[in-house]
Amino acid sequence: MKKLEICLSPELVHLYDFNNKNIVIVDIFRASSTMIVALANGVTSITPFKNLGECREMSKKGYIIAGERNGLTAEGFELGNSPLAFLEKKYATKKIAMTTTNGTVAIQLAKGKAKNILLGAFPNLKATADFLSAMSEDVIILCAGWKGKFNLEDSLYAGALTKELKGNFKIECDTAIALESLYDTHSKDIKGFLSQASHTKRLQNQNIEADIDFCLSLNIYDLVGILRENEFFGEKN
Amino acid sequence: MKKLEICLSPELVHLYDFNNKNIVIVDIFRASSTMIVALANGVTSITPFKNLGECREMSKKGYIIAGERNGLTAEGFELGNSPLAFLEKKYATKKIAMTTTNGTVAIQLAKGKAKNILLGAFPNLKATADFLSAMSEDVIILCAGWKGKFNLEDSLYAGALTKELKGNFKIECDTAIALESLYDTHSKDIKGFLSQASHTKRLQNQNIEADIDFCLSLNIYDLVGILRENEFFGEKN
Repeated sequence: MKKLEICLSPELVHLYDFNNKNIVIVDIFRASSTMIVALANGVTSITPFKNLGECREMSKKGYIIAGERNGLTAEGFELGNSPLAFLEKKYATKKIAMTTTNGTVAIQLAKGKAKNILLGAFPNLKATADFLSAMSEDVIILCAGWKGKFNLEDSLYAGALTKELKGNFKIECDTAIALESLYDTHSKDIKGFLSQASHTKRLQNQNIEADIDFCLSLNIYDLVGILRENEFFGEKN
Repeated sequence: MKKLEICLSPELVHLYDFNNKNIVIVDIFRASSTMIVALANGVTSITPFKNLGECREMSKKGYIIAGERNGLTAEGFELGNSPLAFLEKKYATKKIAMTTTNGTVAIQLAKGKAKNILLGAFPNLKATADFLSAMSEDVIILCAGWKGKFNLEDSLYAGALTKELKGNFKIECDTAIALESLYDTHSKDIKGFLSQASHTKRLQNQNIEADIDFCLSLNIYDLVGILRENEFFGEKN
């Protein structure tokens, strides 16, 4: 039976074997959520970048450049990292270049080894679970975390995805056992539980409560976000 | 207000500042539990060693040598890592030299920086909480984990200790918020929950169910295990 594991931080990736596995990159607040919203709203593709300079260069090639540092729109960038900016198909048919604090670091770490790299987000949780269940490969959920540490929102998503996948995967990973239980306990009030978390507190300070609400919306889109070469595309199962 | 944080693995210690903090080393199955049982049963002191060779040498100096590798008594060692071996004051007044797979690695990482290094174990949970509450320093709970990864039993203890300390510490650490909740959910049936965990399964294979039960005994001893120079001693609050 295929296996499911969770890696809590990019700092722990050397302990996992990513070869030929399906990797789900999770950065709930807000990179992976924003990418899913953008793709669901007709964006052609999203190219992730680790550093600001490379991302900024893409502007010359006709890309819309989006990025944040420490939760704020990066200097000279058209967009920050708010999922709301992509609603109502505002950037449909555009190609986006995006850099973020934690999320793209995790993507870079998985590239070149994995079978597929997917974006994990609550708005398309079930679509991602269905995609993974239909394939034969093992799965590793890779949480972007916060500056290398465990974070609550990525962990809750990892628990939620574990719960969806449980019947189709062998789960011997302690992290997955713990996080599925944590999600189970708080699934009816994720936002209330997260209100204690450090990252949520930081976001609240920047008045982006609406972003948080949107990132926690469950199963409103039925596409997956998947990396093909260097770009994420939205694909229906 | 003093702060409480949890570090889930020795692989993440570089992300934490240990300076002048009280560090609680947690290796529930079984190094830290066994050390607490030994100290509570009259052992004079326990000296932790990272490698087998150094530990074995201590035998010539009159120490009882105890150690395991992959859950089995190390070759040529008098004792493995079972807490039961120390019951009924069988090694009272002896000095012990001990090496284990995960626990002593965590201890070495904290040495030289911390204000105090304590042993975390369920049998003296409340005594450790009382000690930490009475002091003014910040606390970091350092889980030994399993080969660098998160493990369930150390994490549940970290959650239990967080619950005890909550009123006296500021908790902004996502790991602590998550694990306190996880412990809360399972505190009435820790053993049942752990029966899913990978490490527990490994131990069960070696017929040491009785060790597990003993390691999960709550608050049967009222001393703390504390490092003075290179040796752990048992001290009453």
